[in-house]
Amino acid sequence: MKEFDIIQKYFNKPISTKHQPFINLGIGDDCAYLQTYESQELAITQDMFIENVHFFSNTSPHAIGYKALAVNLSDLAAAGAKPLAFLLSLSLPEVNDLWLEQFSQGLFALANQFECNLIGGDTSRGPLSITITAFGLNKNKNALLRKNACLGDDIYVSGHLGNARLALEALLGKITVSVECLEKCKRHLEYPIPRVALGQALSPFAHASIDLSDGLLGDLQHILNASKVGAQVYYDSLFTPLTLSAEVLQLSPQEQRLCVLSGGDDYELLFTAPRKHQATIAKISQDLQIPLTAIGTIIDEPNSLILYDLQGHQVSYQDVSYQHFS
Amino acid sequence: MKEFDIIQKYFNKPISTKHQPFINLGIGDDCAYLQTYESQELAITQDMFIENVHFFSNTSPHAIGYKALAVNLSDLAAAGAKPLAFLLSLSLPEVNDLWLEQFSQGLFALANQFECNLIGGDTSRGPLSITITAFGLNKNKNALLRKNACLGDDIYVSGHLGNARLALEALLGKITVSVECLEKCKRHLEYPIPRVALGQALSPFAHASIDLSDGLLGDLQHILNASKVGAQVYYDSLFTPLTLSAEVLQLSPQEQRLCVLSGGDDYELLFTAPRKHQATIAKISQDLQIPLTAIGTIIDEPNSLILYDLQGHQVSYQDVSYQHFS
Repeated sequence: MKEFDIIQKYFNKPISTKHQPFINLGIGDDCAYLQTYESQELAITQDMFIENVHFFSNTSPHAIGYKALAVNLSDLAAAGAKPLAFLLSLSLPEVNDLWLEQFSQGLFALANQFECNLIGGDTSRGPLSITITAFGLNKNKNALLRKNACLGDDIYVSGHLGNARLALEALLGKITVSVECLEKCKRHLEYPIPRVALGQALSPFAHASIDLSDGLLGDLQHILNASKVGAQVYYDSLFTPLTLSAEVLQLSPQEQRLCVLSGGDDYELLFTAPRKHQATIAKISQDLQIPLTAIGTIIDEPNSLILYDLQGHQVSYQDVSYQHFS
Repeated sequence: MKEFDIIQKYFNKPISTKHQPFINLGIGDDCAYLQTYESQELAITQDMFIENVHFFSNTSPHAIGYKALAVNLSDLAAAGAKPLAFLLSLSLPEVNDLWLEQFSQGLFALANQFECNLIGGDTSRGPLSITITAFGLNKNKNALLRKNACLGDDIYVSGHLGNARLALEALLGKITVSVECLEKCKRHLEYPIPRVALGQALSPFAHASIDLSDGLLGDLQHILNASKVGAQVYYDSLFTPLTLSAEVLQLSPQEQRLCVLSGGDDYELLFTAPRKHQATIAKISQDLQIPLTAIGTIIDEPNSLILYDLQGHQVSYQDVSYQHFS
């Protein structure tokens, strides 16, 4: 099958009607064409998804297709942007119809859910690797940027933390868990839910935001560095049934610590919001049925991240967030 | 060196002042932010550049950086768009300072020439591969699309054809040429000049356009298919000093045929324009000092591509344009 036929068979889908004002042209030319209108801006993110780096060789093609897009939609979510379109660059060692069928099904299962339209990209022979560029719409000046955290802001985290890292550790044979526990956590690892509705709901109220891809402490540090502020984090607030799933609660304290503080790949949102919006944040949590837990406060000590226990004692930690080159 | 440090050291450059109205945020957050204004649209293209597929392992990092961007700017040129910004996703087997230094120099040599700003992307460990997404600005409805060729249009090609394929054949040991000839053609292969100024100059006058990346006949066929028209091509017009460099003119007729009809990687523009703009096209050619040669006419026979010699006889050919999977 030739490149053109692969695109026609698996990837060329009609543009959703409600996005047509923004998408002037999709697949099929040298370029795709987008436009924004008054007081809008285009949020743009690009993430690679590479075999044996971002996913195991035995990961199902369906999960690869899903997650390659999910990690990008998660960046749009962190920005508070509404998904619009994406580009797909797919490098394949060979043309395998079954693989392409399942990959495209996983990809479009998520794309359709968010009406995110594939508008172009590239296909080539090469090592298995996927690069996706996702586009979202923001009202001007409403984006949730890392640099916008303010003194006194509450720091929140969404959902439950650590399941993805638990699955990774178990798949690498570093911890032992039950088959049921592994299956459940593996689903979190392979099919993370990008917090798109949450990001958009938060965007008028929150200040700074980031999605948890590399680990809680490392990602929080990105907000602190960009905003030139510090944070005090209530250590114990991170280890309650509010922030941990039943699976992570069963781990030893040391394993919990690893999965929660350094557990990447959860794709929950970490965000800051002024205290005056406390009730609004609680309402959003209730409306969307997503736990939002206050875990700390922004303080006036640039770049300093301090964990306190219930007794007010400092808890020591190592930043062990994921690094590609270290 | 960590990912963040690589970006800071080699890739984080200030945004050019004249582009600031369109670039609301560049490198450093979950997303970059662009916006367009009234009667503008954003042309978007994405191309992969993979070791041992798109370039040889012994290609200099400077040339890799240059060409990875050049092939994307060439797509913007074909669209008639003005380069604005780009995203870089770089997958590297290891961190090598000398490599990164030279790669980034090659990349920014071209980026600076066109004031095209790096606004984001991704970095990861993995097989050597570069994916670039380039953004350009077009006036609304002024883009040179493949589907816009009209009956009676003249078909033009820019520059000289075949040098890149000559270099490729020589590097693969399939043809023998002098060292000087190889050096000159290798430069065309490794440092193609994206026809950005030409594309913009043509955009008010030309109808359809494509950049020559896979081969003249294959790329012309893309225009014919998209426009639902046919073409008659004056075979001999392709083999004169107007369309061939001194190097290609020295080849045997059979080698010339291969390099010109199927020679990809030249990144010249193939475009169609109505006869009434003949003088304007000649003026653009003169102003930009780029040869623009009329090589055929658009006819009313959908998808048919016929080559005629000077005696009006049909010349047979095989479409041997480059295919990643065949």
